[in-house]
Amino acid sequence: MARVLTPQGEDFPRWYQDVVAKAQLAENGPVRGTMVIRPWAYGIWELLQRGLDDRIKASGARNAYFPLLIPESYLRREAEHVEGFSPELAVVTVGGGKELAEPAVVRPTSETIINASLARWISSYRDLPLKVNQWANVVRWELRPRLFLRTSEFLWQEGHTAHATRREAHEYALEILEHAYAATMEQDLAIPVWRGRKTEREKFAGAVVSWSCEGLMRDGKALQMGTSHELGQNFAHAFDITYTDEHGELQRPWQTSWGASTRLLGATIMVHGDDDGLRLPPRVAPTQVVVLVARAGEGVTEGATRLVEDLLQEGVRAELDAHTDVSVGRRIVDWELRGVPVRVELGPRDLESGQVPVALRARGEKRPYALDGLARAMRGVLEAEHAELLRQATALRDRLTRPVRTVEEAAEQTREGAARLPWAVLGAKGERRLLADGVSVRCLVREDRQTVDDPDAGGVEAIVARAY
Amino acid sequence: MARVLTPQGEDFPRWYQDVVAKAQLAENGPVRGTMVIRPWAYGIWELLQRGLDDRIKASGARNAYFPLLIPESYLRREAEHVEGFSPELAVVTVGGGKELAEPAVVRPTSETIINASLARWISSYRDLPLKVNQWANVVRWELRPRLFLRTSEFLWQEGHTAHATRREAHEYALEILEHAYAATMEQDLAIPVWRGRKTEREKFAGAVVSWSCEGLMRDGKALQMGTSHELGQNFAHAFDITYTDEHGELQRPWQTSWGASTRLLGATIMVHGDDDGLRLPPRVAPTQVVVLVARAGEGVTEGATRLVEDLLQEGVRAELDAHTDVSVGRRIVDWELRGVPVRVELGPRDLESGQVPVALRARGEKRPYALDGLARAMRGVLEAEHAELLRQATALRDRLTRPVRTVEEAAEQTREGAARLPWAVLGAKGERRLLADGVSVRCLVREDRQTVDDPDAGGVEAIVARAY
Repeated sequence: MARVLTPQGEDFPRWYQDVVAKAQLAENGPVRGTMVIRPWAYGIWELLQRGLDDRIKASGARNAYFPLLIPESYLRREAEHVEGFSPELAVVTVGGGKELAEPAVVRPTSETIINASLARWISSYRDLPLKVNQWANVVRWELRPRLFLRTSEFLWQEGHTAHATRREAHEYALEILEHAYAATMEQDLAIPVWRGRKTEREKFAGAVVSWSCEGLMRDGKALQMGTSHELGQNFAHAFDITYTDEHGELQRPWQTSWGASTRLLGATIMVHGDDDGLRLPPRVAPTQVVVLVARAGEGVTEGATRLVEDLLQEGVRAELDAHTDVSVGRRIVDWELRGVPVRVELGPRDLESGQVPVALRARGEKRPYALDGLARAMRGVLEAEHAELLRQATALRDRLTRPVRTVEEAAEQTREGAARLPWAVLGAKGERRLLADGVSVRCLVREDRQTVDDPDAGGVEAIVARAY
Repeated sequence: MARVLTPQGEDFPRWYQDVVAKAQLAENGPVRGTMVIRPWAYGIWELLQRGLDDRIKASGARNAYFPLLIPESYLRREAEHVEGFSPELAVVTVGGGKELAEPAVVRPTSETIINASLARWISSYRDLPLKVNQWANVVRWELRPRLFLRTSEFLWQEGHTAHATRREAHEYALEILEHAYAATMEQDLAIPVWRGRKTEREKFAGAVVSWSCEGLMRDGKALQMGTSHELGQNFAHAFDITYTDEHGELQRPWQTSWGASTRLLGATIMVHGDDDGLRLPPRVAPTQVVVLVARAGEGVTEGATRLVEDLLQEGVRAELDAHTDVSVGRRIVDWELRGVPVRVELGPRDLESGQVPVALRARGEKRPYALDGLARAMRGVLEAEHAELLRQATALRDRLTRPVRTVEEAAEQTREGAARLPWAVLGAKGERRLLADGVSVRCLVREDRQTVDDPDAGGVEAIVARAY
């Protein structure tokens, strides 16, 4: 059979490009670095979004929408923030046929414009905590674009909150990291992630502390998959946000912001995909089960249609493939490429015997199932496939990650995967040395899995890798 | 009691501004004409969006995402289209710190960039029909902005399809008009709408035929609530979209595009709102039932909490208001302002008697209900409130709409509401005369409710009104 994709072992970046194109996930837009998200990938995004949105709402945030265009002067109000984003801005200078008096930037993130609203919305301690989230597009000019991973425009959610105390803001930033982000990544995307603290060098422009979820891709490179920031009172000062506390005193709130984006699609591709294409985690697969009429024959299409209906009835996203004018082999290649978790192949003989072959994409194997009761059993099958993908991804990550004792060993190990070493050994100086080599500290974690309150305390490890 | 809003009868535009501000629906953004959609209004939008999205998917379209930024040259490819949008464009001239070789416009609509993709995606008759939809923000520079109704940036969905025949495109444009748009407006928003054909003068820039749903607001002015266009082969020519048909011949597809936006929030406010505030249709109310602890007392908060839990269990969006530190009166004013359809008021005596007063916002009345079984009965109550709002809105529209016989009578009638008159009487000449007076033809309909294939055939009426 002709090979559809460049094998991962031969050239991973080329494999990625191939699968993004051939599984019809995305393509480049005409303006540099922009991206068209095609229906199959957008379907994954919609499911991912639904799960993450539910978790964000469960954490008490409500959705809202803030303007795309931000006066240039707003960005300048927070010094580190503008410095972080200036090189990446897209600027509107003409509106309605006229040169604008003040240029407007297309939001690269919305801290500034949202805090301008919060300054109006917050006046009393009764208004706190205030938690808003928005789903939106943002633009950060990208010179070396890569579909889903680094694009000039991407889709994301950004949450912004204000709290009465620093402690509460800290706890909420971590709640989002764990119960919204890590939960979505592990429970919906079947991707194991490290949760940890960013170093001073890697933290968000304008934040006091940044936290992130980091995944390890199949090629041993890391990907930052979601970040949650404690902003301290930086933006409260820049936008003059104050409230009157219980004692009638004027106070400034403590804030957080947090975001996750269409990058998660890139992660899903690079953590689970294999040489035959995507392998989709069932919870975000637009089609979970395809029922394929292998060969036409008496009652086969009817039987397949009935099975699809039964599956839909059971709440399974099922689809019929009765395109018998195309060869079975070609159709199978295509379904594997698109990563549909379960494929039921139905031919005349299967109907007779009452047994059907069920191909499980995550395992790369076929198992016989009794046709009777298959629809009822399917949710269990899909759960097992989710668990199998998570198991494989965790095993691979563990294999690609090694504890090391020196900066030299860390540099060496990152040719293969990730290295873990004591932050006390690495430090800011070691971090600089690794960076010169294209290796970065992805996050700081503690061996006892507690959160890192003080990077310089004992027991803190750096997770070090090359990264996307 | 101090009056919260300017009464509608005194100054309708002022009433609108008041309710948008005081019900915390939206506020102006810092860049001219932009809008912040606050959580309460965004919650309505999310529910509206869910219903419309389900209907769009049921019509066979799949969601995708196309870039925000479009090369300026793309817009020029279709002559009427660029002429229609040029005065409204926001233009990015600087990206990543450098002047761009070709300026990029922020999409005012996506026909051009989507058709550039369709040209790549369509090659065979097997690729047709191709139906994509996107939820996105668009920017059209607005000199006289009005929140939700006319803003420089707004949220919408835009669908784009390609079909093998003109007839199929025609039928699909009408399917969306009826089964996606009119259905959402009537079944979810409780707003009766006229579906009709736009005149040559009013049609979309680049379309061959435009269709629209038009609503009548409480002040007698019309609002265009959704449009569906037959694009003919205009964009297929401009973007060179071709396919090979069953006989191996090269053909161009016939296309449609269709959109509905955050304007629908403005319509919902202006069709149902009264002097006390919003009146939300239950299906899009973020909170459908508020259970209000009128006065604290033994077991009251517990009873109210239990009722809220029972309501949630029944699939009702219920919320507890136990803020007994604020007066009952003030809280009631606030819930009425926000338009929550049903308010259950619970005090110590109600618990004893087992009967509770239930305030129905659509009717402006309170009815006693047995506490036992109230949760189970609530979905029925909400359905009845939806029907009541639709009934009232239909009655008001009928009262505000009159058949007339001359252009002069039409002009006269539009001071009160809408006029209907034969298109044969009005014609393009009459249309121009009315326009000079600020009155426009909203759409053309047929008395027998068939679609208007030929505006100049007999039995075609023009619906004429002042419009937002």
